[in-house]
Amino acid sequence: MACPSKAPASIRWEDGELWLLDQTRLPHSVNYEQQTDAQQLFDSIHQLKVRGAPAIGIAAAYGFCIVMRQWRDAAIADFRAQLQPQADFINSSRPTAVNLKWALNRMLAKSRAYTGDNTRELYALLVKEAQAIHAQDQALCQAIGEHGLALIEDGSGIMTHCNAGSLATGGIGTATAPMYLAHQAGRQFRVFANETRPLLQGSRLTSWELNCAGIDVTLLTDNMTAHTMASGQIHMVIVGTDRVAANGDVANKIGTLGVAILARHYGIPFYVACPSSTIDLNTPDGHSIPIEQRHGDEVRRVGDYQATVMDIKVQNPAFDITPAELVTGIITEKGLIKAPLAEGLKKLFGA
Amino acid sequence: MACPSKAPASIRWEDGELWLLDQTRLPHSVNYEQQTDAQQLFDSIHQLKVRGAPAIGIAAAYGFCIVMRQWRDAAIADFRAQLQPQADFINSSRPTAVNLKWALNRMLAKSRAYTGDNTRELYALLVKEAQAIHAQDQALCQAIGEHGLALIEDGSGIMTHCNAGSLATGGIGTATAPMYLAHQAGRQFRVFANETRPLLQGSRLTSWELNCAGIDVTLLTDNMTAHTMASGQIHMVIVGTDRVAANGDVANKIGTLGVAILARHYGIPFYVACPSSTIDLNTPDGHSIPIEQRHGDEVRRVGDYQATVMDIKVQNPAFDITPAELVTGIITEKGLIKAPLAEGLKKLFGA
Repeated sequence: MACPSKAPASIRWEDGELWLLDQTRLPHSVNYEQQTDAQQLFDSIHQLKVRGAPAIGIAAAYGFCIVMRQWRDAAIADFRAQLQPQADFINSSRPTAVNLKWALNRMLAKSRAYTGDNTRELYALLVKEAQAIHAQDQALCQAIGEHGLALIEDGSGIMTHCNAGSLATGGIGTATAPMYLAHQAGRQFRVFANETRPLLQGSRLTSWELNCAGIDVTLLTDNMTAHTMASGQIHMVIVGTDRVAANGDVANKIGTLGVAILARHYGIPFYVACPSSTIDLNTPDGHSIPIEQRHGDEVRRVGDYQATVMDIKVQNPAFDITPAELVTGIITEKGLIKAPLAEGLKKLFGA
Repeated sequence: MACPSKAPASIRWEDGELWLLDQTRLPHSVNYEQQTDAQQLFDSIHQLKVRGAPAIGIAAAYGFCIVMRQWRDAAIADFRAQLQPQADFINSSRPTAVNLKWALNRMLAKSRAYTGDNTRELYALLVKEAQAIHAQDQALCQAIGEHGLALIEDGSGIMTHCNAGSLATGGIGTATAPMYLAHQAGRQFRVFANETRPLLQGSRLTSWELNCAGIDVTLLTDNMTAHTMASGQIHMVIVGTDRVAANGDVANKIGTLGVAILARHYGIPFYVACPSSTIDLNTPDGHSIPIEQRHGDEVRRVGDYQATVMDIKVQNPAFDITPAELVTGIITEKGLIKAPLAEGLKKLFGA
């Protein structure tokens, strides 16, 4: 298995070409696919070859450049005529992914702001904008890592759940950012990654990427959390999040709530790492966040293994809500917010 | 899929022949294999085709009869000469299974107590003893069910973990016994079965056997416990146990401790069901119970699906210890023991 020996990049932009790591084949095969046309890019996003909100946005921005490249020697009017329909097509690959739309809108705004008539010049500006989106995400991850770094001491045992890692972002991840920086700083610590059924992001992605980077990582099934905490091996939990409500309630991958309650039972601090853009002051609390129910076969099957009879009744909530009172702190690019979270979040936005 | 429409039997003794349900092929195939010789019986126990302490003991007792049958027309001395070596061979199929040794010792004691010289008569006594062992286990399960029945009301939601069902015993199981009796009594309730990684006894066995019996069962991944409790669907937990210590600490399948802590967090009663033979007053508390660490590939794989790279570090504790203070009650064949458990357990044994 090819292993990058540092945080593996989900997206590479090299010599004007876009390469996406096919995450559906991880960890069995590490394969970067060069993206050459709109349909291929659409499929890569749609089939979750690239996943994680920030990574999808960056891939879409670069991918938009690759798609528009075929008109870069055309008249400026012809180039402009393609911008909206091509962006719409890429955007339709995952209609509910907020970062996808956000990144493409930013690319369109950049092209509208250009008043010249040199098509190659406009194309170069688009590439520069995509690189800026990528660089900004890298900087966000880095800043989250720096604010979380002080939490990790020599000898720390850190539990994480699902994948909020380099594979989900353009940089060193969110929950994993303090881990990568602590590793760089030479600190000795251990990470415990929960496998995260049903889709196994912990075993397929998190344990793989941390192992690649040389970080001491141990994979656990989700039901080993309590025993591992009771054994004294866990000193903190750091997870990512899909949305933080104004009161500090946290929506994240199913299983996060259980980890938070067990951490509280054993007196272990529970941290959430995210860019401040994930905090939504318009969502008053966790009750306002709808929980997606996914297809039951994800529970009945594991990978390609059928674990039960296929007509068995199941539930398959994709997320759960961790109440603010179980959250020790939220690590953002602007700093660490501690309880009471509602006040801290307001201040963060100057509200 | 053939489905028995009541608690499926793990062991059948019909017309002097032994049939074992091959649990390794569940739930994909429901196949009773006739046992005809010592090597086949050894393999059936060794390969976990029959599993669960009580079921193993019963299978060994009947199996001992099948093995001895070939000498039932021999001289009594020749028959007697075979008893110990054949029992030793069967016993070596799973050296740490207490019920295996216990059942075979009981069969040997029975044969030693026979003072006659009629080989066929002695053989018939052995069959009768095996049937008695089976009937006693059925009665134990039934009595546990009757003492637990009052806990289940119309509208109850009951969570269970792993398989302490009919498949693990000669009767209607331990944790499942109150469920089978409540179903017989026409009560409306729902069972939520955790899949129980790494070996998936919840998806492969528990959800299958309850579904077969027409009980309303929903399969969950292990990390859905907290969310499902938070949603108000769970009103009690009932699990089995491998050993109860004198102070009431409970050893059971990995994940049980987490379920117990989450139940306490949500104010949900947590019950343990077992025959009183599982309570060991010579074990002062849970710290004295060694936790078996099993092969790491059970975590790296799920069924035949490889979930991560095979050199990733893992932990694989097979059991955890739930402290007595998290246990609402222990349901035994002699009655329901409530807190303080240490006192109740002492009284149970007249100590």
